[in-house]
Amino acid sequence: MDLDSLRAASPGIVVDTTDEALEAARADKSGHRATGRPIAVVRATEVEHVQAAMRWASEHGVPVVPRGAGTGLAGGANTGEGELSIDVSGMRRILEVSAADQLAVVEPGILNADLNAALEEHGMWWAPDPASRAISTVGGNIATNAGGLLCAKYGVTREAVLALGVVLASGERIDVGHRTVKGVTGLDLAALMIGSEGTLGIIVEATLRLRPAVPGGVWTIGAFFDDEVAAAAACAAITAAHIRPAIMELVGTVSVRMLSAYTGRPMQGAFVLLQLDDVGAEAIARDALAIVEAHGGDAELTDDVERSAMLVEVRRQVHFALDSFGTVLVEDVSVPRTRMPEMFALCADVADRYGVTVATSAHAGDGNLHPTFVFDEDEPTDAVWAAADEIFQGALAMGGTLTGEHGVGVLKRRWLGLELGDTQLRLQREIKAVFDPAGILNPGKVFEG
Amino acid sequence: MDLDSLRAASPGIVVDTTDEALEAARADKSGHRATGRPIAVVRATEVEHVQAAMRWASEHGVPVVPRGAGTGLAGGANTGEGELSIDVSGMRRILEVSAADQLAVVEPGILNADLNAALEEHGMWWAPDPASRAISTVGGNIATNAGGLLCAKYGVTREAVLALGVVLASGERIDVGHRTVKGVTGLDLAALMIGSEGTLGIIVEATLRLRPAVPGGVWTIGAFFDDEVAAAAACAAITAAHIRPAIMELVGTVSVRMLSAYTGRPMQGAFVLLQLDDVGAEAIARDALAIVEAHGGDAELTDDVERSAMLVEVRRQVHFALDSFGTVLVEDVSVPRTRMPEMFALCADVADRYGVTVATSAHAGDGNLHPTFVFDEDEPTDAVWAAADEIFQGALAMGGTLTGEHGVGVLKRRWLGLELGDTQLRLQREIKAVFDPAGILNPGKVFEG
Ligand SMILES: Cc1cc2nc3c(=O)[nH]c(=O)nc-3n(C[C@H](O)[C@H](O)[C@H](O)COP(=O)(O)OP(=O)(O)OC[C@H]3O[C@@H](n4cnc5c(N)ncnc54)[C@H](O)[C@@H]3O)c2cc1C
Ligand SMILES: Cc1cc2nc3c(=O)[nH]c(=O)nc-3n(C[C@H](O)[C@H](O)[C@H](O)COP(=O)(O)OP(=O)(O)OC[C@H]3O[C@@H](n4cnc5c(N)ncnc54)[C@H](O)[C@@H]3O)c2cc1C
Repeated sequence: MDLDSLRAASPGIVVDTTDEALEAARADKSGHRATGRPIAVVRATEVEHVQAAMRWASEHGVPVVPRGAGTGLAGGANTGEGELSIDVSGMRRILEVSAADQLAVVEPGILNADLNAALEEHGMWWAPDPASRAISTVGGNIATNAGGLLCAKYGVTREAVLALGVVLASGERIDVGHRTVKGVTGLDLAALMIGSEGTLGIIVEATLRLRPAVPGGVWTIGAFFDDEVAAAAACAAITAAHIRPAIMELVGTVSVRMLSAYTGRPMQGAFVLLQLDDVGAEAIARDALAIVEAHGGDAELTDDVERSAMLVEVRRQVHFALDSFGTVLVEDVSVPRTRMPEMFALCADVADRYGVTVATSAHAGDGNLHPTFVFDEDEPTDAVWAAADEIFQGALAMGGTLTGEHGVGVLKRRWLGLELGDTQLRLQREIKAVFDPAGILNPGKVFEG
Repeated sequence: MDLDSLRAASPGIVVDTTDEALEAARADKSGHRATGRPIAVVRATEVEHVQAAMRWASEHGVPVVPRGAGTGLAGGANTGEGELSIDVSGMRRILEVSAADQLAVVEPGILNADLNAALEEHGMWWAPDPASRAISTVGGNIATNAGGLLCAKYGVTREAVLALGVVLASGERIDVGHRTVKGVTGLDLAALMIGSEGTLGIIVEATLRLRPAVPGGVWTIGAFFDDEVAAAAACAAITAAHIRPAIMELVGTVSVRMLSAYTGRPMQGAFVLLQLDDVGAEAIARDALAIVEAHGGDAELTDDVERSAMLVEVRRQVHFALDSFGTVLVEDVSVPRTRMPEMFALCADVADRYGVTVATSAHAGDGNLHPTFVFDEDEPTDAVWAAADEIFQGALAMGGTLTGEHGVGVLKRRWLGLELGDTQLRLQREIKAVFDPAGILNPGKVFEG
């Protein structure tokens, strides 16, 4: 491949072909890696680098894979044989913060946590908070429509983006959405870009909707229940009482066992984490505590900052605890909130029948479960995928969806048609083709090749 | 046209060709009417009627205009020569309400206010509240992504829709979005449908995201200021203080004068309406009151239900007051909140220079202004449109948008390319063609023919 012409395409463009770079570009955090090796990694630091690389790729018919921090869990950023990785993690400037207009304009490569650290002095924050916020990019959050612990109350990424600058497959730039909080001029291409996993264009700039820091105290509840059914019932009762916690997480019994072993702290049963914030939080937290206890929860309530952080940390450590037991495959089904107990039961039943380990935790505030398969690296994965298939089918039968926040990537594309139906799948492919007629933007991701 | 085959296309389908029906279908509430007369109005009461009519229209190459209640302000539902109006206002069943999952499934023709009345007994509500809520349909609200008084705090229609059933130009039905609160499977076609003004498909079912009734008291502030600049500064200071009112409306001086004449109540200056709700509302309302008074507002604060309703009524009567002075053309620009004073000044200046009357009011919480032209029916509208053009250009130059909530319809399509740019406009047309290859769905609306 003629990489010299790519190097000459734009001043300052870095085209990395070191072994290390090519190897790293093959994988994200899904545990999967692409077949073969990419031809190069473009390390973009300017919009013009992305445009030049896309023009070059279009001219040479080279498939391109957009990449942020590579923390994805669906294989979306994995780059293989004959493909070009365009890494925008070096584009990390904050171009503007307006506290008065409650917005910020940023480059896509800034890490979520870095952005929020910078917003603090303005008394503002950006709500999306994936558990990976310290290591994932804002552009990646947008490309996957990331969720997080706080999104039941504060919304997913879609609700926190006003406008996007996007480089198309042709190398042209379009600006979609509005700097204003409202706007209905034409079709909503900003919403269409969000969650499109790099299949429609490369996000090179984002105008984000900020929120003022939440006033009032923060109260945290940690509670252990005998089993997941009791824990899920407590969560349902909180929702039914019209309490809207900032955080409502449920960690299942298998996960708690692994957590206990990983941390060396004795824990058992199912764990529920609740956080209440905003004006009046204390009174509402006490109501929530009463509900938790009425459902058999062994609970503590605190507004101590350190103690709260420790309770939240229990939830945040789940991924690492599971990881210490083997290779993990994190699933991501979402169901209507009332079907959560059923979904927990299905996961346990499936694990039993296929003889696999499934450790489940859930963003209980919005019905998003992460049944996580834990297995030996050399173990054949047939049983895992057969079990996953049953879980997907079960979620769909309950009115749910294959993926609540991680995206389809390569891991779930097989099941896409099952959820969308043939007609919608065809429409989606045709829309993809409008943006990318030659099919060079992240081919084989979301849609099967 | 072979209407017999249309009448035979589905059991129970009503094909209305009375003079009255055809005449009514030509217009919405924009003050514009289509040239010529539609061939018929289909009064659908079942999904199958819509599908049969679309199949028939596809077969015969007949252009179709979807219609809710016809309260639109952009001419989107206007149906002219050779076109078929598909009126879904007779499809108004509530198919499901789940308080536990905080959702409702409804047919598109139900009136927004009727839905909310029915939700009351479940302790729930649907947040979109256009001033036209008593007379507009949920399907029309979705097709225009309607805003309203409460949307600065509770979001526009887009944030309140989970999933849609849509009949395509071919007559096929697709189901887009999710019953779950989160979901990222494939491209977000539900978001794309919202605000698409009947150009992509006909919405025949909607799964709505409900909110629990807001707890706590409701406090209302009504305040008069010397001029719009002082009023806008007070609103900006409220936002800067991180107060998030449920309602924050600004009625400009010309509108207040007309209101005064219309109601016979002496009023002058610019009027600001604020409403604070939720836990802790009283204390926050008192803070807001202090800010209003510090900015020179002559203010009253009340939590009396009747008095509050009277203050809100002042804002709600604006449209009718203006209407009593002549023909109205309601514009709908949106600008970043900090540019509002500038936009008010521009409207006054433009009115002066073109010798036209522009009465402006604004959803101040989100920077959405309605500069409203008031003129005699027989007056030539050249000056009006030239003045409107300057207002549009001004809004775009301030980082704003042509239409914050009413849509493009026929009235603003001339300016579409100005805001979107050529490349994006081309993409939008191509996406429209994916859904509607023969171009029979609301042709000439949004996109120029
Ligand atoms: C420990 C851990 C916890 C996690 N917790 C959560 C969680 O709570 N919620 C959640 O939603 N996710 C979570 N994730 C998954 C992941 O962090 C998110 O999907 C994140 O948004 C990905 O960001 P990234 O910068 O790493 O993107 P990448 O992995 O680099 O890319 C992800 C996808 O987006 C595309 N993409 C990236 N940048 C761009 C761009 N600028 N333009 C166009 N396309 C682009 C890629 O092509 C790919 O398809 C977690 C991951 C880990 C490892
Ligand atoms: C006094 C008054 C106050 C108003 N206040 C507001 C306000 O505060 N905020 C606001 O946003 N708007 C407001 N409007 C405008 C209008 O009421 C809204 O746009 C409303 O959402 C239109 O609903 P409708 O049922 O009347 O739709 P219609 O006027 O019938 O149609 C509007 C558009 O949607 C399409 N459409 C309708 N139903 C469907 C369907 N089922 N499937 C596909 N396409 C469909 C039509 O083709 C058309 O393009 C106001 C109007 C009036 C007269």
